[in-house]
Amino acid sequence: MPTSDVETIEAGRLTEARLIEMVFPEQTNHYGTLYGGQALALMDKAAFIAASRYARRAVVTASSERVDFHVPVRQGQLVELLARVVATGNTSITVEVKLYSEDLLTGERQLCTVGRFVLVAIDADGRKSPVLPLNVAAQGNHQP
Amino acid sequence: MPTSDVETIEAGRLTEARLIEMVFPEQTNHYGTLYGGQALALMDKAAFIAASRYARRAVVTASSERVDFHVPVRQGQLVELLARVVATGNTSITVEVKLYSEDLLTGERQLCTVGRFVLVAIDADGRKSPVLPLNVAAQGNHQP
Amino acid sequence: MPTSDVETIEAGRLTEARLIEMVFPEQTNHYGTLYGGQALALMDKAAFIAASRYARRAVVTASSERVDFHVPVRQGQLVELLARVVATGNTSITVEVKLYSEDLLTGERQLCTVGRFVLVAIDADGRKSPVLPLNVAAQGNHQP
Amino acid sequence: MPTSDVETIEAGRLTEARLIEMVFPEQTNHYGTLYGGQALALMDKAAFIAASRYARRAVVTASSERVDFHVPVRQGQLVELLARVVATGNTSITVEVKLYSEDLLTGERQLCTVGRFVLVAIDADGRKSPVLPLNVAAQGNHQP
Amino acid sequence: MPTSDVETIEAGRLTEARLIEMVFPEQTNHYGTLYGGQALALMDKAAFIAASRYARRAVVTASSERVDFHVPVRQGQLVELLARVVATGNTSITVEVKLYSEDLLTGERQLCTVGRFVLVAIDADGRKSPVLPLNVAAQGNHQP
Amino acid sequence: MPTSDVETIEAGRLTEARLIEMVFPEQTNHYGTLYGGQALALMDKAAFIAASRYARRAVVTASSERVDFHVPVRQGQLVELLARVVATGNTSITVEVKLYSEDLLTGERQLCTVGRFVLVAIDADGRKSPVLPLNVAAQGNHQP
Repeated sequence: MPTSDVETIEAGRLTEARLIEMVFPEQTNHYGTLYGGQALALMDKAAFIAASRYARRAVVTASSERVDFHVPVRQGQLVELLARVVATGNTSITVEVKLYSEDLLTGERQLCTVGRFVLVAIDADGRKSPVLPLNVAAQGNHQP
Repeated sequence: MPTSDVETIEAGRLTEARLIEMVFPEQTNHYGTLYGGQALALMDKAAFIAASRYARRAVVTASSERVDFHVPVRQGQLVELLARVVATGNTSITVEVKLYSEDLLTGERQLCTVGRFVLVAIDADGRKSPVLPLNVAAQGNHQP
Repeated sequence: MPTSDVETIEAGRLTEARLIEMVFPEQTNHYGTLYGGQALALMDKAAFIAASRYARRAVVTASSERVDFHVPVRQGQLVELLARVVATGNTSITVEVKLYSEDLLTGERQLCTVGRFVLVAIDADGRKSPVLPLNVAAQGNHQP
Repeated sequence: MPTSDVETIEAGRLTEARLIEMVFPEQTNHYGTLYGGQALALMDKAAFIAASRYARRAVVTASSERVDFHVPVRQGQLVELLARVVATGNTSITVEVKLYSEDLLTGERQLCTVGRFVLVAIDADGRKSPVLPLNVAAQGNHQP
Repeated sequence: MPTSDVETIEAGRLTEARLIEMVFPEQTNHYGTLYGGQALALMDKAAFIAASRYARRAVVTASSERVDFHVPVRQGQLVELLARVVATGNTSITVEVKLYSEDLLTGERQLCTVGRFVLVAIDADGRKSPVLPLNVAAQGNHQP
Repeated sequence: MPTSDVETIEAGRLTEARLIEMVFPEQTNHYGTLYGGQALALMDKAAFIAASRYARRAVVTASSERVDFHVPVRQGQLVELLARVVATGNTSITVEVKLYSEDLLTGERQLCTVGRFVLVAIDADGRKSPVLPLNVAAQGNHQP
């Protein structure tokens, strides 16, 4: 393996994170469907990664908005999460997270739910800390 | 140990569930505070148990309302969750969940966040299924 | 959410802890019943929390007494643990733990086993450390 | 949330999977670096997803080729895995997996290791089963 | 790799099981020592494997005898468990389990605790089922 | 329990590690067989323990050689790993790991795969560090 150089991806350059998760038995109820709370945990994780990558600062979740669960995810399906920074405040970052299910064998794929999470950047003392304003024009370069 | 008899606690009799959770490293960010998504997962779990106990039917989470995280929970603290059925519809159960942190050594205890979750009862075919209406007068008998 | 004030619950005030656990596949044998060792781990956890809360000191388990498993807990049931400080020595706390199973759908609830654990309070150097003597009269105020 | 239609992604259409994983304490040695075996497990997981998506059949890992670990991944970094189907046989799928580390705060990103895994498609009886030949021209459409 | 033939190890032939476990952060308290309950869970697991191997029947734990914890196990140490069938009844198997700690860097190794677990063989209907009587003379052949 | 003395097992004395693992649902695919990547993770863990015990130094995995998976391991079987130091370089330790499956009920036992892992000893600054040369004559004393 040729060892690669270190690349540095600065704050503001990445606005997305794409995660794939397998659904395990301990994340499902007795009916084999993903608990709502497990879906929320995965969505917050995707939001955390997208906001951290965008800000290159420590971030914590300040709030999650209302989330509706219309389409269940079943054990044996994949969950794919697409998190995207959609707005910034002085110290806050709003991330929209789409959760898709994908059946590995049939290839059926469906948007199951969408949520918005607001995260706040903090400094080493836990105080709110400024973030780069979102430059909508720069949003084309999503993937490292 | 004297083996105890089986007691049956019917639908409608219990309206609360009280859970204690330890906060583990894998549930916290690099700053040692519980991820928002992990808090949501614990809150949904408490809501699921309270609603199942109330309805004695299969239930699934239909929605989580907006949740704000004002007080962080730190590694090495307990989380105590108090879930309470606060409303019922034809097939739905609304559960309010309070999340407290408790420091085992100092004894400091604090309400960290409150959330509401709506769960729906389903039958064996996954169709919505009626639930007992909440009898506010009966709410005194919370613990088994 | 209105941020709540910090309450401090001093040593000696709380003598109980009540925990609910879901039974997951990885805690059960091939016959779908909770391993005895998993039951012991949950019981010790409840004893640890009750003793820590009582003493507001670091505690470690010094011994577990004989435990008999007469009633199996099955996957898809809840386990509820009720831990109660029943005696204190100079540096030790004896906690009795009752383990109940509860079937979420049928509402059947049963005492499965009872155990006693002795925990010892230790200071920062790991030396045994005195604990408040149990005041039986004060035992009415169990829940925070 | 508007419920989305079900899309079906047929065999042969997707040739990639992109996964992001957080590095947890239990995946690292005492020096805070990811165990080689945990890296292999993540790489095989990415290969499994890429091969399943490509074939839309049950697949099992038949072999992993030699993997060298030159750049350690540290706790508190992300791992991003990029798995890509690079060859097919009658019943086998060869997947190349690149493992990158990314430091959330500094934005430093580095290719840590590359591995190749051969997976075999199997039918319901566990017998080897044919897969679509890889059409190199079709490889532009990687992401669902 | 040359595929090996299948060997069959009949009931009564193996009387021991030797397990090594790493101690992970989530199994330790805030002082970095293994919870007593986690030690009990590991010991019961070793007893389960030794009794299953001996009987080649389904077994469940009927009781654990008093266990004292005199020597703490610390994070970053190994736990080695040596379980040995020491007695049989008509349907029961008594297993003695020794738990050793081993520091990987210093090589210090110490017997931390010893426990006895009684397991009962059950048939497909959950009824007690006879086990081979322990032939003390046969105990020389411990390892497969 | 009589507390035992501390024994010290010096570098070079132990050349083997024997581990038993249960196969859990979350380590298996939908067909109930252990993922190849989970087998690799268990094999690397066994190699890590054997190399650490041999060297009594911090070790990290430098490479894993080609591994073929011919015999699947099924849920409900044991995995037994036998890791053995087979060669040493100036700073490296080569460990061969055999992975056996064992069916607890039938007693069927089979060699499933063999792999070789090279680990490197490192000092506190992460630099390569010399290891004792393997003395083949000394290999008779494998178990502590």
